[in-house]
Amino acid sequence: MSDRCPAMLADRFNTLYFDAEREAVQLLDRRCYPFSTEFVSCRTLEETARAIESMVVQGGPPLAYAAGLGLALHALQGDARPVAEQRARMQAAGRRLAATRPTADDLHHVLCDALRAGEKALDLGVGAGEAILDYVNGEIERGNQVSRECGRHAADLLRGGDRIITHCIAGAALAWMFWLAKRQGKALHLFATETRPYLQGARLTAATARELDVPCTLVTDAMPAFLMQQGKVNRFICAADRIALDGHISNKVGTYQIALAARQHDLPFHVLGYDGPDADTPSGAEIPIEERSADELFFARGVDPESGAPARVRTAVTGMEAYYPAFDITPPDLITAIVTDRGVFPPGEIGSYFS
Amino acid sequence: MSDRCPAMLADRFNTLYFDAEREAVQLLDRRCYPFSTEFVSCRTLEETARAIESMVVQGGPPLAYAAGLGLALHALQGDARPVAEQRARMQAAGRRLAATRPTADDLHHVLCDALRAGEKALDLGVGAGEAILDYVNGEIERGNQVSRECGRHAADLLRGGDRIITHCIAGAALAWMFWLAKRQGKALHLFATETRPYLQGARLTAATARELDVPCTLVTDAMPAFLMQQGKVNRFICAADRIALDGHISNKVGTYQIALAARQHDLPFHVLGYDGPDADTPSGAEIPIEERSADELFFARGVDPESGAPARVRTAVTGMEAYYPAFDITPPDLITAIVTDRGVFPPGEIGSYFS
Repeated sequence: MSDRCPAMLADRFNTLYFDAEREAVQLLDRRCYPFSTEFVSCRTLEETARAIESMVVQGGPPLAYAAGLGLALHALQGDARPVAEQRARMQAAGRRLAATRPTADDLHHVLCDALRAGEKALDLGVGAGEAILDYVNGEIERGNQVSRECGRHAADLLRGGDRIITHCIAGAALAWMFWLAKRQGKALHLFATETRPYLQGARLTAATARELDVPCTLVTDAMPAFLMQQGKVNRFICAADRIALDGHISNKVGTYQIALAARQHDLPFHVLGYDGPDADTPSGAEIPIEERSADELFFARGVDPESGAPARVRTAVTGMEAYYPAFDITPPDLITAIVTDRGVFPPGEIGSYFS
Repeated sequence: MSDRCPAMLADRFNTLYFDAEREAVQLLDRRCYPFSTEFVSCRTLEETARAIESMVVQGGPPLAYAAGLGLALHALQGDARPVAEQRARMQAAGRRLAATRPTADDLHHVLCDALRAGEKALDLGVGAGEAILDYVNGEIERGNQVSRECGRHAADLLRGGDRIITHCIAGAALAWMFWLAKRQGKALHLFATETRPYLQGARLTAATARELDVPCTLVTDAMPAFLMQQGKVNRFICAADRIALDGHISNKVGTYQIALAARQHDLPFHVLGYDGPDADTPSGAEIPIEERSADELFFARGVDPESGAPARVRTAVTGMEAYYPAFDITPPDLITAIVTDRGVFPPGEIGSYFS
């Protein structure tokens, strides 16, 4: 049996890559996928940064890879310049890209290491752009392996008949989890919250389930606790944009209230933690919560029901404010365990991931 | 100072009435209000029933009044027929209207009493339609008074500086609460969940706040617990579609998980209970939960951002199921008190409303 998970999102190279011929970073537009499979072609640093800010890319690791590719592009475009100028340009580009999204830690780590790879190349008198690109492509490959291993450990936790609720998009590890659990003969059912305002659940999670032939039921973000009260779901699984060493996690806003409901109903809550906690974040209090434009809550994006063309509607009246924290913080006492590529950790022991 | 609350929804006659000239029940279309202020003109029983089913009218008491007016219309249209036929038509119409929405108890009570008024008129040899219409108009007037009194008791509970989160649309009593609290000099701030899929919060609640000049911040249905964790709100207030004698309430799905979060953060949760519990519903287990068409979760309705014309987009991929319980059940231990026109009751003592 093939060892390749057929979900689009399971292999990050399906969704982002450097196109040498066009000299561009190609990013799957996750704002409209799977209604349409379009790539945004970023030909400059600034275009890449804006694509990241405007939600073309979503999810911790993909954000990091997109930023890394943007840095590689920028360095490649400057590789005929004097070395001192290349260094200054690279550092400025790193700052620009780091400012795009504050919450996920992967972005900052990949940028930091990519800059280091570029600096080292310049020290050796070779091309910084190529060095950064090699590093980022290696990270994408490593991330694919991490996703598969994390998904494998998660699949082992599941039982046939599980009815899982998830929130937002738990990405490649979720896809691997379902794929490997199916190979173990476990029949599973997924409930996906739609995840306003970007509706990642209704589009990306649902598409992943469809690609893997896992039955999937859409619910609104208001329904998880009631599903638990009714006994319609028996576990909660989501990803995390950052994991602190004390076991606090940040994930798409809404995770915290689902975790509260899971505790109320004695249901397990597992976090797909990919490659573990952020060594630079001792506690939940250190996780910055990105506040996005209030304007994003006033609209719903989708497709025209007749033509299938991308469309959006204004869903809220004018003359009001909106508040849009993109993430929330869930404390460790609400988390059953964090599943990583290196195994399953109680949240209070996630620091031992590194030992 | 005027004793008239200026919010559109505070006076139910603003939103539904019998138009004798057109021989039609006129219903404000709450699916698009306040983007447009359009009335659906129902010229038959069946048109009225379908308008109710398709969410033209929303909220417990308005649903009941719309159904009552539909019954009056039908009786008026048959008042030249033999009395036995009138009785049979009226009973059949009552069954049709009662089947439109199962959860709210007002609908069933108003229909039952309207049928009784019609029967009595026929016994006396006078017109059943006129008798039903008189009864329903009296109920609307009574409901307006109930709303004001319920709002008055709720206003007395508030303190200046309160930051209130609400869910869905709490209707006329919420409007009165804000209006009367403002007259008491209390500065308040409202946080409204958008309330997918019909977005009552983003439209109806927000419009009410705007009409009353109460600052209102829109959030998604996923954010209440995080707002509480951040200290941005200090109390939760919503309405109820049915209150059982044991203190369980049903309200728009999502209420339960916000109530769980409020308890976690030691915040008061008050239910605007209008005219009290349903004497025929001993416990929460007896409250039927309406399951609406899954199709309603696949779309978002609003207006075209450019033209302002009504529009909708498909927000979910095809090939998945959806589950849409329109209401959920919140147990009494999560409720601080139920506010009615007769005062404020601990949920466990709501049965004494009648004594």
